[in-house]
Amino acid sequence: MSDPRPIGVFDSGIGGLTVVKALRDLLPNESIVYLGDTARVPYGPKSAETVQRYAIELAELLTRRNAKVLVVACNTVSSVALPMLMTKFSMPVIGVIEPGARAALQASRNRHIGVIGTRATIRSGAYEKALRATDNNVRVSSRACPLLVPLIEEGLLEDDVTDQLILRYLQPLVADDIDTLVLGCTHYPLLTNAITRVLGLQITLVDSAQNCARAVEEMLNQQSLRAAPQNRGELHVALTDAADNFLNVARDALQLSFGEIELQALP
Amino acid sequence: MSDPRPIGVFDSGIGGLTVVKALRDLLPNESIVYLGDTARVPYGPKSAETVQRYAIELAELLTRRNAKVLVVACNTVSSVALPMLMTKFSMPVIGVIEPGARAALQASRNRHIGVIGTRATIRSGAYEKALRATDNNVRVSSRACPLLVPLIEEGLLEDDVTDQLILRYLQPLVADDIDTLVLGCTHYPLLTNAITRVLGLQITLVDSAQNCARAVEEMLNQQSLRAAPQNRGELHVALTDAADNFLNVARDALQLSFGEIELQALP
Repeated sequence: MSDPRPIGVFDSGIGGLTVVKALRDLLPNESIVYLGDTARVPYGPKSAETVQRYAIELAELLTRRNAKVLVVACNTVSSVALPMLMTKFSMPVIGVIEPGARAALQASRNRHIGVIGTRATIRSGAYEKALRATDNNVRVSSRACPLLVPLIEEGLLEDDVTDQLILRYLQPLVADDIDTLVLGCTHYPLLTNAITRVLGLQITLVDSAQNCARAVEEMLNQQSLRAAPQNRGELHVALTDAADNFLNVARDALQLSFGEIELQALP
Repeated sequence: MSDPRPIGVFDSGIGGLTVVKALRDLLPNESIVYLGDTARVPYGPKSAETVQRYAIELAELLTRRNAKVLVVACNTVSSVALPMLMTKFSMPVIGVIEPGARAALQASRNRHIGVIGTRATIRSGAYEKALRATDNNVRVSSRACPLLVPLIEEGLLEDDVTDQLILRYLQPLVADDIDTLVLGCTHYPLLTNAITRVLGLQITLVDSAQNCARAVEEMLNQQSLRAAPQNRGELHVALTDAADNFLNVARDALQLSFGEIELQALP
């Protein structure tokens, strides 16, 4: 038994393509339909109620595109809307928080984990809850880094100003002696080089995109939802507004190839 | 004859409060209803079609609140949607481009004017068109400064990183010998100190908020729409999503006082 339907991936914008990249690498025979809400990006500074309303609209659009599973490639949405999406939709729903938290616990030796993300993600305390659910003794130091997304979207991945702001954001976590840092925003893997340059190699970075892709693989296997091995996985990208500069940044940095972008009208 | 109805002001978010501040200073007896689309902010990176659709929705909400005039306190919307708003709505509509362009032409001696704004504003060429409509010999050097809005929204108004980015953005304009710089985004007046620190005092800054307020005063006088002199002007603020950090930044920097924020549902 195989299931040729696409994996549905959605995000507030373009950042979730880091999850798509990880899925393509891990599951090349799976087709993917990606939906980015560029008409209303960013979600990070917005309220939980608004993010939840947007998430339901996007998930509904993906069910109409016959998605076999919903991947929430956005930490902000995963933080505030995952339980609600799981209740409202019958297909499996996978976010980025749980897989990231699990990987962080595996990586940490001193049980002191740092988490960075948007304001909405950090305010939700979602990583902290997910980490403590498994290990009640873990220490968590969190920090919202609201300027990193705009810097990434401008393509300043290798830039002195970006390095300065990373240092400013992360210094308190380092001083607090974390040994593992969760990149709790799907944009952040694009800053892996910069963060490593600033922090050095003593601190393990946990990339939520890669861990999310592994969780998707596991779930597809468990529920017999894999496409046939010989299937040629297609990638289709739809956005709610015309793509801007950042699509080129992401495409180049991730070396992703996809055809024309479809414009998806919002309800 | 006097008209007690409020001036309707709208913006993609909170930045338009710089226009409200200028209106309060100039027209203290006028009531103002401000509508900020924080649920979909920012507009700067979005397409003209999307910005136009959002602008019509906001203008309609203000007409339902009995606004006597529509003030588009957003350079992005003014750049791409003003003629359309003027056609669709019967009341007077005033944007920020035209008044800013007029003030810049008055200020410049060497007829070489710089314009900074969001990507959408600069791409539209709206300031260039408005400047050339009056003086065909003017030279215009434009530059999109997409990181300034996030820096302002984070409150980094007096910060080394902000100064570095201002220098990076403005250096080509200065090298090009502008003598006047239009702050073509309603957020930017909050950076007046920083920009002056970086550029020195040789370059005249034109603040679109102040010039927009003067244009509103002129139009109200011409069309006999002024409130009575003894009227106590009220300021009412409505946002489409819960206010974030930036509302405090703006309130403090502008020393604006207003009561509770109303949450305005979108259609």
